[in-house]
Amino acid sequence: MSDKFIKSKAAIAWGPKQPLSIEEVDVMLPRKGEVLVKVVASGVCHTDAFTLSGDDPEGIFPVILGHEGGGIVEQIGEGVTSVQVGDHVIPLYTPECGVCKFCLSGKTNLCQQIRETQGKGLMPDGTTRFYKDGQPIFHYMGCSTFSEYTVLPEISLAKVNKEAPLEEVCLLGCGVTTGMGAVMNTAKVEEGATVAIFGLGGIGLSAVIGATMAKASRIIAIDINESKFELAKKLGATDFINPKDYDKPIQDVIVELTDGGVDYSFECIGNVNLMRSALECCHKGWGESVVIGVAGAGQEISTRPFQLVTGRVWRGSAFGGVKGRTELPDYVERYLAGEFKLSDFITHTMALEDINESFDLMHKGESIRTVIHFDK
Amino acid sequence: MSDKFIKSKAAIAWGPKQPLSIEEVDVMLPRKGEVLVKVVASGVCHTDAFTLSGDDPEGIFPVILGHEGGGIVEQIGEGVTSVQVGDHVIPLYTPECGVCKFCLSGKTNLCQQIRETQGKGLMPDGTTRFYKDGQPIFHYMGCSTFSEYTVLPEISLAKVNKEAPLEEVCLLGCGVTTGMGAVMNTAKVEEGATVAIFGLGGIGLSAVIGATMAKASRIIAIDINESKFELAKKLGATDFINPKDYDKPIQDVIVELTDGGVDYSFECIGNVNLMRSALECCHKGWGESVVIGVAGAGQEISTRPFQLVTGRVWRGSAFGGVKGRTELPDYVERYLAGEFKLSDFITHTMALEDINESFDLMHKGESIRTVIHFDK
Repeated sequence: MSDKFIKSKAAIAWGPKQPLSIEEVDVMLPRKGEVLVKVVASGVCHTDAFTLSGDDPEGIFPVILGHEGGGIVEQIGEGVTSVQVGDHVIPLYTPECGVCKFCLSGKTNLCQQIRETQGKGLMPDGTTRFYKDGQPIFHYMGCSTFSEYTVLPEISLAKVNKEAPLEEVCLLGCGVTTGMGAVMNTAKVEEGATVAIFGLGGIGLSAVIGATMAKASRIIAIDINESKFELAKKLGATDFINPKDYDKPIQDVIVELTDGGVDYSFECIGNVNLMRSALECCHKGWGESVVIGVAGAGQEISTRPFQLVTGRVWRGSAFGGVKGRTELPDYVERYLAGEFKLSDFITHTMALEDINESFDLMHKGESIRTVIHFDK
Repeated sequence: MSDKFIKSKAAIAWGPKQPLSIEEVDVMLPRKGEVLVKVVASGVCHTDAFTLSGDDPEGIFPVILGHEGGGIVEQIGEGVTSVQVGDHVIPLYTPECGVCKFCLSGKTNLCQQIRETQGKGLMPDGTTRFYKDGQPIFHYMGCSTFSEYTVLPEISLAKVNKEAPLEEVCLLGCGVTTGMGAVMNTAKVEEGATVAIFGLGGIGLSAVIGATMAKASRIIAIDINESKFELAKKLGATDFINPKDYDKPIQDVIVELTDGGVDYSFECIGNVNLMRSALECCHKGWGESVVIGVAGAGQEISTRPFQLVTGRVWRGSAFGGVKGRTELPDYVERYLAGEFKLSDFITHTMALEDINESFDLMHKGESIRTVIHFDK
């Protein structure tokens, strides 16, 4: 605790299943290669809730959650060159160092440069920047955006156009990019293709947007909560299926509806049975299914290998396959150009002090996204 | 039986698990869109043995097996324009009509034009061309190359260079193309890539050839029968693994050996546990695994979806993804140009009368391929 620090309001998760506690913490100033960010807004995502539930096998406490933020550079550490004080940034839970084997491959966005320490809730040097009364508090997904001030490695920041409202583009820090990117980047859906999207939460609806932008000819939206269909339709979905309306497997329903199956499918929930349905509703010969949802620990997917031998492809996507520093700024530009809207996703906004209510809304299925405004 | 017919020597499978019976059958002359082929040579493949075992749920009897042949056009039916009498042809169990949804997609070789009748052992008009004393005998995989004369739809024949010895290029009718094509066509292995090949039968060894032709930097050959390693090495494999030498899962061994996993893997056996190993030995971020082997009825593959979300891709391949009529002739040209050899695969040749011995050799693991010569 010999470093200098500043005071910050933050929501601390002291343990699993406990309400977040709004407290004042000490945030150590950025060290070499690090950046202090003043968070302007942060979405509240299912992954935050998953970790808070205690079911996340990698979850550690006490921790400051939040990974879908937008903020302004407050101070830079030694050697930082790619961002300056005042820059608008989106924190990246998937960094982009540009020099590791993964970044150099050109084949993946899964930079592994700081994976080990990030997975342990620490900065790359193996320490934390958050303290409460001298007790260390862990970082979360390398972001910890439920704090007024947070510290990130330089490689974990995407510098974006200052014209974009951070209260909206913060959603590009996770859910929206994950769904849109899976469609446009991972699957590379082409014009005229048919698409099935399983689950109409924030990621599924973002996949609908991605499919609409890709000019898919048919976008089949699947959910057991029919109240989601209205927004899905507004965003471009053309067909709506509630699996509860059918006795037979939903993949059979979709195959019949589409004369053989869809060209692309996306599982946006994390249900291993639906991952199988999503694969098997794909067209023989070329259909590709993308797993986006995160399944519970130890759960497995299955199918008959004949499904693959007859031409279906099973793949997955994390953060939409998007390389954060080089590609995310362009998502912001496309948003600014009016190619898609983010306001549709934001059903609630509130102050950090009310953050526990956002988890309640999520669990009740009443929100798509709540965005925390730090100036509220 | 009012049509004209010719007499032909053929090996009839009267029922499962019975030795093939060499008999003289009546072969009806080709009808509209059909071609009578004089078979010169035919490989004996595991798939023939699988159907003969009775385990093939689609197997029907009595039938004339054989699907890996080379022959000469003897007579053409009405309307046939793409082949002429005297042309050298390779029968295709995966036809290429050029006009069905699948052919037109450009994305798959799985032409479905005659699939329904072919699956029932019949010609596209729903009848058979083989009779024994008036009793109909079924076709097999649309080929039935264990007959001196056989009839095929025009769309099921690849016309190939007459300079190529049919006693060798017959192997391009199934196994060799399946293995080479999976590497070069389905996975599109690039120069410098690392490859793992599970199973060193005819298909696995062909995959080794494909990887060598693709200039893979490392070709890891995996089999529990170490006697296969010598030929694999001759064909270009660089590393050899016998899973019985290790206590831990073979995917872990390969991941360690390759600093994170291979770029591409191929399962060439039909063992669902090895299909999982093949996927999981792939490199995080980009590794792709191709299922080539055919698993037993009802068997399923499994893995944790995390394997896909972190960038691995699971796909399959049938007949190497090769479109028979438009692409197989080029394989023959590449063979003639000396890019690969087929003689290494042919461990035995024999007359049709000895065909049951070829199944014995296969079951004992003593042959890679036996080729039946009809002039012997």
